[in-house]
Amino acid sequence: MHTDTDIDTDISPSSVWPLPVRGDAFERADADILRRMDAISAATACAKLNGMGVSRTAVQGPTALEVGSRVVGSALTLQFMPQREDVASGLGQEYVERNTALWAVLETVQPGDVLVVQAYGSQFTGCFGDMLVRYFKRRGGAGIVVDGRIRDAARVRELGVPIWCTGTTPHYASQTDLFPWAYDVPIAAGGVLCLPGDVVVADDDGAVIVPAGKALELVEDAEDHENWEDFSRLRLEEGARLSDYYPLSPNSRAEYERWRAEQNALQR
Amino acid sequence: MHTDTDIDTDISPSSVWPLPVRGDAFERADADILRRMDAISAATACAKLNGMGVSRTAVQGPTALEVGSRVVGSALTLQFMPQREDVASGLGQEYVERNTALWAVLETVQPGDVLVVQAYGSQFTGCFGDMLVRYFKRRGGAGIVVDGRIRDAARVRELGVPIWCTGTTPHYASQTDLFPWAYDVPIAAGGVLCLPGDVVVADDDGAVIVPAGKALELVEDAEDHENWEDFSRLRLEEGARLSDYYPLSPNSRAEYERWRAEQNALQR
Amino acid sequence: MHTDTDIDTDISPSSVWPLPVRGDAFERADADILRRMDAISAATACAKLNGMGVSRTAVQGPTALEVGSRVVGSALTLQFMPQREDVASGLGQEYVERNTALWAVLETVQPGDVLVVQAYGSQFTGCFGDMLVRYFKRRGGAGIVVDGRIRDAARVRELGVPIWCTGTTPHYASQTDLFPWAYDVPIAAGGVLCLPGDVVVADDDGAVIVPAGKALELVEDAEDHENWEDFSRLRLEEGARLSDYYPLSPNSRAEYERWRAEQNALQR
Amino acid sequence: MHTDTDIDTDISPSSVWPLPVRGDAFERADADILRRMDAISAATACAKLNGMGVSRTAVQGPTALEVGSRVVGSALTLQFMPQREDVASGLGQEYVERNTALWAVLETVQPGDVLVVQAYGSQFTGCFGDMLVRYFKRRGGAGIVVDGRIRDAARVRELGVPIWCTGTTPHYASQTDLFPWAYDVPIAAGGVLCLPGDVVVADDDGAVIVPAGKALELVEDAEDHENWEDFSRLRLEEGARLSDYYPLSPNSRAEYERWRAEQNALQR
Amino acid sequence: MHTDTDIDTDISPSSVWPLPVRGDAFERADADILRRMDAISAATACAKLNGMGVSRTAVQGPTALEVGSRVVGSALTLQFMPQREDVASGLGQEYVERNTALWAVLETVQPGDVLVVQAYGSQFTGCFGDMLVRYFKRRGGAGIVVDGRIRDAARVRELGVPIWCTGTTPHYASQTDLFPWAYDVPIAAGGVLCLPGDVVVADDDGAVIVPAGKALELVEDAEDHENWEDFSRLRLEEGARLSDYYPLSPNSRAEYERWRAEQNALQR
Amino acid sequence: MHTDTDIDTDISPSSVWPLPVRGDAFERADADILRRMDAISAATACAKLNGMGVSRTAVQGPTALEVGSRVVGSALTLQFMPQREDVASGLGQEYVERNTALWAVLETVQPGDVLVVQAYGSQFTGCFGDMLVRYFKRRGGAGIVVDGRIRDAARVRELGVPIWCTGTTPHYASQTDLFPWAYDVPIAAGGVLCLPGDVVVADDDGAVIVPAGKALELVEDAEDHENWEDFSRLRLEEGARLSDYYPLSPNSRAEYERWRAEQNALQR
Repeated sequence: MHTDTDIDTDISPSSVWPLPVRGDAFERADADILRRMDAISAATACAKLNGMGVSRTAVQGPTALEVGSRVVGSALTLQFMPQREDVASGLGQEYVERNTALWAVLETVQPGDVLVVQAYGSQFTGCFGDMLVRYFKRRGGAGIVVDGRIRDAARVRELGVPIWCTGTTPHYASQTDLFPWAYDVPIAAGGVLCLPGDVVVADDDGAVIVPAGKALELVEDAEDHENWEDFSRLRLEEGARLSDYYPLSPNSRAEYERWRAEQNALQR
Repeated sequence: MHTDTDIDTDISPSSVWPLPVRGDAFERADADILRRMDAISAATACAKLNGMGVSRTAVQGPTALEVGSRVVGSALTLQFMPQREDVASGLGQEYVERNTALWAVLETVQPGDVLVVQAYGSQFTGCFGDMLVRYFKRRGGAGIVVDGRIRDAARVRELGVPIWCTGTTPHYASQTDLFPWAYDVPIAAGGVLCLPGDVVVADDDGAVIVPAGKALELVEDAEDHENWEDFSRLRLEEGARLSDYYPLSPNSRAEYERWRAEQNALQR
Repeated sequence: MHTDTDIDTDISPSSVWPLPVRGDAFERADADILRRMDAISAATACAKLNGMGVSRTAVQGPTALEVGSRVVGSALTLQFMPQREDVASGLGQEYVERNTALWAVLETVQPGDVLVVQAYGSQFTGCFGDMLVRYFKRRGGAGIVVDGRIRDAARVRELGVPIWCTGTTPHYASQTDLFPWAYDVPIAAGGVLCLPGDVVVADDDGAVIVPAGKALELVEDAEDHENWEDFSRLRLEEGARLSDYYPLSPNSRAEYERWRAEQNALQR
Repeated sequence: MHTDTDIDTDISPSSVWPLPVRGDAFERADADILRRMDAISAATACAKLNGMGVSRTAVQGPTALEVGSRVVGSALTLQFMPQREDVASGLGQEYVERNTALWAVLETVQPGDVLVVQAYGSQFTGCFGDMLVRYFKRRGGAGIVVDGRIRDAARVRELGVPIWCTGTTPHYASQTDLFPWAYDVPIAAGGVLCLPGDVVVADDDGAVIVPAGKALELVEDAEDHENWEDFSRLRLEEGARLSDYYPLSPNSRAEYERWRAEQNALQR
Repeated sequence: MHTDTDIDTDISPSSVWPLPVRGDAFERADADILRRMDAISAATACAKLNGMGVSRTAVQGPTALEVGSRVVGSALTLQFMPQREDVASGLGQEYVERNTALWAVLETVQPGDVLVVQAYGSQFTGCFGDMLVRYFKRRGGAGIVVDGRIRDAARVRELGVPIWCTGTTPHYASQTDLFPWAYDVPIAAGGVLCLPGDVVVADDDGAVIVPAGKALELVEDAEDHENWEDFSRLRLEEGARLSDYYPLSPNSRAEYERWRAEQNALQR
Repeated sequence: MHTDTDIDTDISPSSVWPLPVRGDAFERADADILRRMDAISAATACAKLNGMGVSRTAVQGPTALEVGSRVVGSALTLQFMPQREDVASGLGQEYVERNTALWAVLETVQPGDVLVVQAYGSQFTGCFGDMLVRYFKRRGGAGIVVDGRIRDAARVRELGVPIWCTGTTPHYASQTDLFPWAYDVPIAAGGVLCLPGDVVVADDDGAVIVPAGKALELVEDAEDHENWEDFSRLRLEEGARLSDYYPLSPNSRAEYERWRAEQNALQR
């Protein structure tokens, strides 16, 4: 490897294809909806979306790097492609990487963004390390869902940015099989389509992509769901029979409505 | 999805096949044997059963949700089958589920039971969530071994019920590919046959199914094993050579017998 | 299984092939280099080796048993082979095992050694348990990287020896599919060649095998890298633009050189 | 292994659990529907069922042993379970096997039956060999779909019974990990539920399980489909544009209706 | 499913995202180079590209549907994305599909094109069936490399279009998990980057993507290689020692040059 | 890549480790036993060995390249190891390869040898191509069992050497991840231990490794087995009940003995 000083800092990542690719401008998810989504678990979001006819929303593969992780935010997307030395490769490591979609997307992070990354679940690609996550955090990034691995895990954990990934590896992002290709484009992450500006809800169960156009309906439906589950939980703790209170039957639904009315009256 | 109130709570899960299927009555594992099994690790149980000629006892796949988990109990079994919309599906979510083997088996839980679940290691099926585990705990359930995933992991962890599973997912039990089919029947969990009333020993190494008819012989053999291992551990700490004391040779066995006699004498 | 006393302690593991196989004497990694390697992460080692033309150094599969694990040491190697009852098997469990390469290699452990084990990622083989790790620790062993599983995980965790493995299992080392065959030989662990006396650097990102002949060059290159990353981290925290300081451009490299000179002056 | 003569031919496969398990009597698929199904490909059956709301019908894993295989028939089911030496094992090979569900189900084969087998895709289990397939053929069996492997492949190919399986192996049915457990019961084959008496349609695309209660509707829908595809094929060969004739648009549908009327007139 | 006549043939595949996506115009591979490439095997192309510094060119996964398949052509690309009901799904099967990238790309096929398809190796997606391959063939398409499955395999085989795929399935293209999204865009097929207009060389060894800009150099290098291998083959048949003639040593290279000169002289 | 002429033909494959490694001299399997083994299928060999207490003999992974393949021979072994550029790599392709264990072992082939290769099932390694198989055939090699892939499949098929492999690839033997390391050593192929001089029996069911020391006993046992199966086949064709004649009961065994005596009398 060349020493750190004899570098050509103007290396474009590719002469064969204009890189990085940037998709069209997009609208971030509505702040108010994101706030209301805060109380909703990934599991409830996923179940409700399924009931609303959208069945493929749970990102397969990535798991929370830290137990107890949780994030809600607007999706920012990044797409890797297979590396090919005549187009783009990581031979010069960061000296090429700095001109790629990976560096570029980080410059567009806005507070609350969740970066969602298509990396094909590669076990050889450490998409993010300490320095990049540090920079992501400084710009206000809220979380990262990567269908691939991360590196510098010990240091990354200290930064406290919630991350969902398929594991850790000592490899850097373009060391082996993949190369950062495009951002602000539709991506496939863990078998799920994610458009820029979709809502991401992720916790210990995994990450769920909520289509932007379905978010409001979901929030309204899910709030009711979370409420009656609180009531059911109470009754089960008191010794009630499961099928009477979970889910609510017409009878227990009526009972719940009365209970909630009382609760609301008390709180006023 | 229909709103929560327009439900038909009498939906039978299937008109094509009488569900849920319930197996014959069975005898739970002997309480005294369970108590003696408490001191025996999954590893020792598995090794001893292998020595006794039963070689396929370690459930492949499920791992402890929490480090340090441990349970011994009598097996209660539940079996999922692939979902098929003309027979049984989860389209109406809990409103159908409440009439399935999943709800049914929970009503039969007795204190100390370990629920063992055949779910084919499905990555799309969250067999248990917060409400079900909560109910299981309230009925005295001791632990769950599921060859599949769970959901609501954050809340489930708080409940403290030891669980072995193949991961977490936001999906509910019958959201995608499987449906709760039968209980109190022989099942295949992680490549191991489990009959109702077998003994389950699970810890950080994984779950072992001890055939009910082999449990007493195992306990007796394993108690001796755990005892001489204590002695070997002592000698190794004192600097002895591994192959002299692990496993015991005839010489060190004799030495151990004397040591144990002394220990017993001291304790009297 | 025979009872613990009717054993033939002189069972040779095999009459068909002279076991255990021991490779030629080898030189352990240089102590001074190991000391300097202490400050270098697995990720930096792996990236630098890649830059130096050695691309296959990160052991695929094994992960740290405990978050926060870290070790640097000289590689001691152990190789399993598939079990075959006419050559060598674990039917008599430890009474045969004690004459195998597994017991033998433990007798050769020197302080600081890292044991690297070829076990084909087997999910059925618990290569090490409490007693063996205990003995390994007593002899000063620094860590274990095993392309296979371990058993007695709860007790092993308490011992505090850093271990990288592919999981846990209740099976003992020769219970099922593999048998300890050779030591002090070149091995294939997680797709990486490891020669006796190579340097192992392992942390939360995984384990990296540093060829002995590349260790000095790596150390020198990596120390500079770790230094300028400290500087970059500082600048990024102050709000600098990522691509100006990570990696260093010619400009920021010059700035860094001045900064380091000042730091060094201050420390004197 | 004992010689062939010192056998106990009355060995029941298990003293722990009454084996083999036989499910309730069932009705075979209607002969007339089976005949009409003959013209329908697995692909058309699967697509139409999906359109009818049954989405999980294509058996994942098993492929045709011979290119050009094709079968339609009524499902006869067989279920393997994990082997456990205290319950049932293959140590005595065929001398135990002859009392199992595998031998038993073969005695119930009727002409035209397709045997569908749950064997968990095991790579270690050769569910059928030359002798069993030979017997199956003699009784008029039409085909076998096994989510597992077969043995004696060279001889089995000569018999000409169409078989879908996950591969070949030298192992016999109960040599290693599984044991024949039950027949005439609902099974899970390649992720698909199969009830006794369902219709099996299998060809080079794989095997599809058609629910008995959906077969008539499917046949009617599919016959029309196969007909208009013939017409589309004709038009495409003549140079028409794909989206004008595949699938039919309202215009080309009308054209097709006229064409078919003409064809029918000509045939009279 | 609706009957074939009550269809809305103007369904756009998506109101949420403008589909299908079409990439920029591209140049097809040079016809003369394609002609010269005809004599070069996939193995030689892959080895030579590796020697030229391009290491990731062999598409992993897809294999030849028919033994003896072989194609050389200019790449036409098609990309699937995960299905999401709010964006695009296959519920109405072909009535939606006809407006997708799958139908669209087929209208752009030119004689000699090889269609390369990104379908993530999905086992649930039959990207092409009889009708589509038929149409592809009619337009002069030379071959198909699909990192996914096909359906109607029996009929497709009869068409004689060489196809590399990961298997067969009864599912149609958008029946389950994927949806045709874009064409004329860079794609990732079996871990390899393919740009529109690259050269595809595929045979029984699999498919190799030759970067357009490397094709000429490759052809020249490979022609020499194929020539001297003919000579080596001759010598080995005559009984020569392998390492003297494969590969050529300086001595045998000189011998080969003389032999070739003679051959050329004879041919004039 | 350098042109074919500027090569250093004396490159030793490694300066770090003395390559190739060659194991000790070994005895080939007995010719008479090999001849008698000719009538025995892989399935019968595997079943009988299991009955004789050797349970792990069927090589997992490799399948016959051509349907109808069959070989019996004495095992010659070759072992690959992961490639590491400082030790040994394929950068210079055949110019290095010719000094490796791959070329070396081919020079030791004797008529009737079956080459068994440990290549970890790698999908990136084409262990053998046209030229090497051609040379192998010329030296009288009988077959190849490789736990990895081959290349030049079209030409290799024409050579007619029976080959069991895990697939095909355009990659050459040391192009990517592995390097030929040793020969005449014990190897692990598809989870099975193979010693030099063991007997290999391979057919459409796969390859079985028969321990040299067990071959005679196996032959004797298997010959009887093949004989009575002929008788059983006859009876089944005549309409007998499966469990009466497969396997033989004491009654049908007696009947068989008489039948065989008659047959023998007739043949004299």
